[in-house]
Amino acid sequence: MAMVCLSDFEAYAKKYLPKIAWDFFAAGADDCSTRDENILAYKRIHFRPRMLRDVSMMDIRTKLLGTEISFPVGIAPTGFHQLAWPDGEKSTARAARAMNTCYIASTYSTCTLEEISAAAPGGFQWFQLYIHRNRAVSQSLVQRAEALGFQGLVLTADLPYTGKRRDDIRNGFRLPPHMKLKNLEGAFEVCKMSLLDPSVTWNDIYWLRSLTHLPIIIKGILTKEDAELAVRHGVQGIIVSNHGGRQLDGGPATIDALVEVVEAVQGRVEIYLDGGIRKGSDVLKALALGARCVFIGRPALWGLAYKGEEGLQDVLRILQDEFRLSMALAGCASVSEIGRHLVQFSKL
Amino acid sequence: MAMVCLSDFEAYAKKYLPKIAWDFFAAGADDCSTRDENILAYKRIHFRPRMLRDVSMMDIRTKLLGTEISFPVGIAPTGFHQLAWPDGEKSTARAARAMNTCYIASTYSTCTLEEISAAAPGGFQWFQLYIHRNRAVSQSLVQRAEALGFQGLVLTADLPYTGKRRDDIRNGFRLPPHMKLKNLEGAFEVCKMSLLDPSVTWNDIYWLRSLTHLPIIIKGILTKEDAELAVRHGVQGIIVSNHGGRQLDGGPATIDALVEVVEAVQGRVEIYLDGGIRKGSDVLKALALGARCVFIGRPALWGLAYKGEEGLQDVLRILQDEFRLSMALAGCASVSEIGRHLVQFSKL
Amino acid sequence: MAMVCLSDFEAYAKKYLPKIAWDFFAAGADDCSTRDENILAYKRIHFRPRMLRDVSMMDIRTKLLGTEISFPVGIAPTGFHQLAWPDGEKSTARAARAMNTCYIASTYSTCTLEEISAAAPGGFQWFQLYIHRNRAVSQSLVQRAEALGFQGLVLTADLPYTGKRRDDIRNGFRLPPHMKLKNLEGAFEVCKMSLLDPSVTWNDIYWLRSLTHLPIIIKGILTKEDAELAVRHGVQGIIVSNHGGRQLDGGPATIDALVEVVEAVQGRVEIYLDGGIRKGSDVLKALALGARCVFIGRPALWGLAYKGEEGLQDVLRILQDEFRLSMALAGCASVSEIGRHLVQFSKL
Amino acid sequence: MAMVCLSDFEAYAKKYLPKIAWDFFAAGADDCSTRDENILAYKRIHFRPRMLRDVSMMDIRTKLLGTEISFPVGIAPTGFHQLAWPDGEKSTARAARAMNTCYIASTYSTCTLEEISAAAPGGFQWFQLYIHRNRAVSQSLVQRAEALGFQGLVLTADLPYTGKRRDDIRNGFRLPPHMKLKNLEGAFEVCKMSLLDPSVTWNDIYWLRSLTHLPIIIKGILTKEDAELAVRHGVQGIIVSNHGGRQLDGGPATIDALVEVVEAVQGRVEIYLDGGIRKGSDVLKALALGARCVFIGRPALWGLAYKGEEGLQDVLRILQDEFRLSMALAGCASVSEIGRHLVQFSKL
Repeated sequence: MAMVCLSDFEAYAKKYLPKIAWDFFAAGADDCSTRDENILAYKRIHFRPRMLRDVSMMDIRTKLLGTEISFPVGIAPTGFHQLAWPDGEKSTARAARAMNTCYIASTYSTCTLEEISAAAPGGFQWFQLYIHRNRAVSQSLVQRAEALGFQGLVLTADLPYTGKRRDDIRNGFRLPPHMKLKNLEGAFEVCKMSLLDPSVTWNDIYWLRSLTHLPIIIKGILTKEDAELAVRHGVQGIIVSNHGGRQLDGGPATIDALVEVVEAVQGRVEIYLDGGIRKGSDVLKALALGARCVFIGRPALWGLAYKGEEGLQDVLRILQDEFRLSMALAGCASVSEIGRHLVQFSKL
Repeated sequence: MAMVCLSDFEAYAKKYLPKIAWDFFAAGADDCSTRDENILAYKRIHFRPRMLRDVSMMDIRTKLLGTEISFPVGIAPTGFHQLAWPDGEKSTARAARAMNTCYIASTYSTCTLEEISAAAPGGFQWFQLYIHRNRAVSQSLVQRAEALGFQGLVLTADLPYTGKRRDDIRNGFRLPPHMKLKNLEGAFEVCKMSLLDPSVTWNDIYWLRSLTHLPIIIKGILTKEDAELAVRHGVQGIIVSNHGGRQLDGGPATIDALVEVVEAVQGRVEIYLDGGIRKGSDVLKALALGARCVFIGRPALWGLAYKGEEGLQDVLRILQDEFRLSMALAGCASVSEIGRHLVQFSKL
Repeated sequence: MAMVCLSDFEAYAKKYLPKIAWDFFAAGADDCSTRDENILAYKRIHFRPRMLRDVSMMDIRTKLLGTEISFPVGIAPTGFHQLAWPDGEKSTARAARAMNTCYIASTYSTCTLEEISAAAPGGFQWFQLYIHRNRAVSQSLVQRAEALGFQGLVLTADLPYTGKRRDDIRNGFRLPPHMKLKNLEGAFEVCKMSLLDPSVTWNDIYWLRSLTHLPIIIKGILTKEDAELAVRHGVQGIIVSNHGGRQLDGGPATIDALVEVVEAVQGRVEIYLDGGIRKGSDVLKALALGARCVFIGRPALWGLAYKGEEGLQDVLRILQDEFRLSMALAGCASVSEIGRHLVQFSKL
Repeated sequence: MAMVCLSDFEAYAKKYLPKIAWDFFAAGADDCSTRDENILAYKRIHFRPRMLRDVSMMDIRTKLLGTEISFPVGIAPTGFHQLAWPDGEKSTARAARAMNTCYIASTYSTCTLEEISAAAPGGFQWFQLYIHRNRAVSQSLVQRAEALGFQGLVLTADLPYTGKRRDDIRNGFRLPPHMKLKNLEGAFEVCKMSLLDPSVTWNDIYWLRSLTHLPIIIKGILTKEDAELAVRHGVQGIIVSNHGGRQLDGGPATIDALVEVVEAVQGRVEIYLDGGIRKGSDVLKALALGARCVFIGRPALWGLAYKGEEGLQDVLRILQDEFRLSMALAGCASVSEIGRHLVQFSKL
């Protein structure tokens, strides 16, 4: 089986993962409209490619908050990587470092932050945080992450409660007994997400700020109003995200929401995006609309499911090659040449 | 079979109801375009969800003309509940009371108003009225309903004649011999809807007003012109409805018509909606666009078909849970926080 | 098999007609885009139905150039009715008269004008004309029609050459030997449409005018420019038509073209429409957009194929009942109450 | 099997060509969105056909840079014709000459320029050029072409690198050993397209200009900005093209891009188009939107695959007949009467 594009990895994962794991990774909330919109929305954006520009020397590097990555695609925070590959998040960390990009490790990892950090020393890693009712748990996680050398703190804002994912309910999804939410062991029983705090508000950003010197990136913003609030509360970055369509079904595709967020922020902080990235040209569209970088969620899991660290590297390398080629064919030799002029929204 | 969402109840009902009953409940007029549009239209409305708002204490109660219900979903008037469950409307009444919401009993019930009322003493019930050529019939119904403690009178405005439902014609649909339109027994032969009066006009609202002290809610309004007339003729509420797509095929989806009705009414009377509600997020969209409450028709019948009173409670509980979760994920802790800002119409 | 709606007659005809005849009647040009658009376009037009209007006395009659018909649906000119039913156009004429509506007999009838006229004495008939290279042929036809009591002359303007209908080419379509274009016998060999004159221009309207006192209706107009020319050249009526999608593929649906024609004509002459009428509500939409009457082509042939004169009456009666019901449900008691306010174009 | 329209040739080629060859010709980049959009976009353009215009004498000839062709359809440059028919580009050249139209021979022909020229002496031929890293190779090709009597030089601007065509990668596509890129023999190893120069810029137009007196036509322009640059750099013609959707997936359909290019150029140079032409009416739409001529790529290969020179003539003749008929049915007797007024973009 030739692995030519990301859909090949998807097909592989669907075929070889246990159904309950596939369903968990694939799940969207309710009718999965938003999950699917994340992908469809890219088809309504057309390039305006420019010709006869010297694209012999391609530079696809960019910087996230000052740290260089090899191309503008990182690994979004997703949970339970051991469901996809025995080594779990350790493999993810190694692949991200090998490809010189950023990995956002999830609170719901099946490896400890210490294991993740140790698996890829010197790797560029951010830590994704949910805020728990017991603030001491969150405080401890933040301080462990900072001590271990994680370089950013990603606060997920869109999960006061878990979205309704029908297949998980039908399957009675829970982690197999030999897997643990290791970062939370001792704090509370596994998989009780209801211990998350639904009373979190913007003021808690100040509390987080008081705990750490790490830059704070807020994930899950979809409106200009919230983008403005994020900037005012002093975050360093915004990830436009709808949690892969797993939380509120009926929200906008992230690529559509990106437009209003970028317009509101006016360059005051960096803006990233996740959701629906399946091809290098999707990355190019997101950058043209103002994202500095995108993050992949499910495709990373498909790569892990295929061959662990190596499989995820394959996925990243394909995206990298496709992104470089799309840039060249659109007439851009470096990411600094990518801009709003490069795309138009289809009238259809 | 896990009953996770309303579609599960639909599938159950389709499988286990006699075809003739399923077809009758499912029927739309002509090509069923409007019936199907009622559902599709929700997919063109996107949320603009807000993050980091304290949603730890959720209050999903609302009031209909001053009476509190546990959440903004009531039971729309539909006929012939015994086709779905032996106890018919008595089960419906009990389920509505158990869930603390409003039940609009239909003129075409297979139980008497007295039975319905007695089945759920203290329940919140409105009575739905068709105006008959023999006005004495209608007058008697209104006065019985008021005497029994029904708290509102819902006048259906969109059925001067019955819509053309092809499957009912093919099936030669009629009630089985052991079922009766009990509220009309003695008045005329069963199922002769042609005894309805197609000459009813707005002035008949004044006639109804002279018969009863109950608030009058008009059902079947789809335009701003008629909304204005309704307000001017002194109704207390408007149900934006196209009769589930069973009357004029080719009319607008109710969620689309809601917008112009809300704009015309400017808060002078309460506005409700039925048609196409299949998920808690549909309820949230309707409220965001100005409805105070929605009513479910077919889903209530599916619940009855599944397990009578208990099945209908299941349906309502699922909607309630989904609505509460959607509200929280959209950043609203109480229905008073829901507003027009929460949604946008897709450009597609 | 219950014949409930026009699709039932279509299914019957498709099943029982010889494939070559079905294909000929069903054919559209090229990809059949315009043929199919004629139908799809109705789905993008939504009613704005009005409630509580006295619709107890329905008057669905209208007048075509002063002659009353029982409802605003006539029979469009189509050729070769013997392919559908042995008695051919004689049955058509009888059914039209029985239903008190207008029948436009085609030049390409398989019965003579004399037979058609004699089959339904006193019937309301127009004669459809193609202009031949040999003008004497056309002149003779016009004068025969007038002498026989046909009340209007319909000049088809959209067939300088025959459209490319792929199935007819594949089938090698030609009339069976026992059928004749009887009106043209002696004039030239059967089915050589190439004897039509592609040099016809607007000035030929004056020539026609000089031949007859009959009102001239021009068929095949799709633009405001041509509508203006038609009025200036003194026609009495315009049929907005794309020849059932059989001529230029890629033209507009007739219901869409109707809007600009109506706007250009500003009531100076009567405007009719054919193409895509499948339900009574389609008729109502066309009238709301300014047509005085519509004509059915293929559905009439399906009726003939089903049971000849009787089958066509069934088709007309169904349309009549559906039209009356749609009017009532939209709040109109007579055709004079139908207007532009009754419909809106879907934003989709 | 009757060959009635171009789809028939497509079906034939798909059935009888080796899969690897079919896949190569059919391939689009990535998801093939742009390839498919090229075709779909025509369906969103509607004619505004005019009636009663004298179309008895049809003149469908046009001129490309002063040279008359029999109708406004030429042969686009595509590679590897021997994959479709043993005689390869020689057959193509003969068919084009027989139909009196223009053939753009590709750099990647499997016959030499000399063979192509000799196959159709006196034929109207342009030569398509890629610029190689080794400029001497390109210079030599240009000068050979001019010496052989090719009448125009078509510079392909959209292939600094080859697009990602998944099926070709899966198939491991390469030319069979007995076929050669004969024009490049000696210059470098077969099929190493990476020898193309991705550093080409607009200034290289001046270099080309210095090599030859032939008119220069630039192929691959999709934006008004590049159209303006092309005119300023002195080209004689522009081919609006997205390389049949084989380069950057996600670009606009060529018929959509044509509009902005035509508007920018304002008649200063001739504009042509390729991509998605499947019917004579597509040609008419392109001319109505400002193209002087269109070129066919894949349909020409299907014709070759069917019967070589004769098959390609069949394809061209069908297009010619369809184009003539479409013109007549739209009311145009000569190409000079075709204009923007003839079409409108569907609101859908």
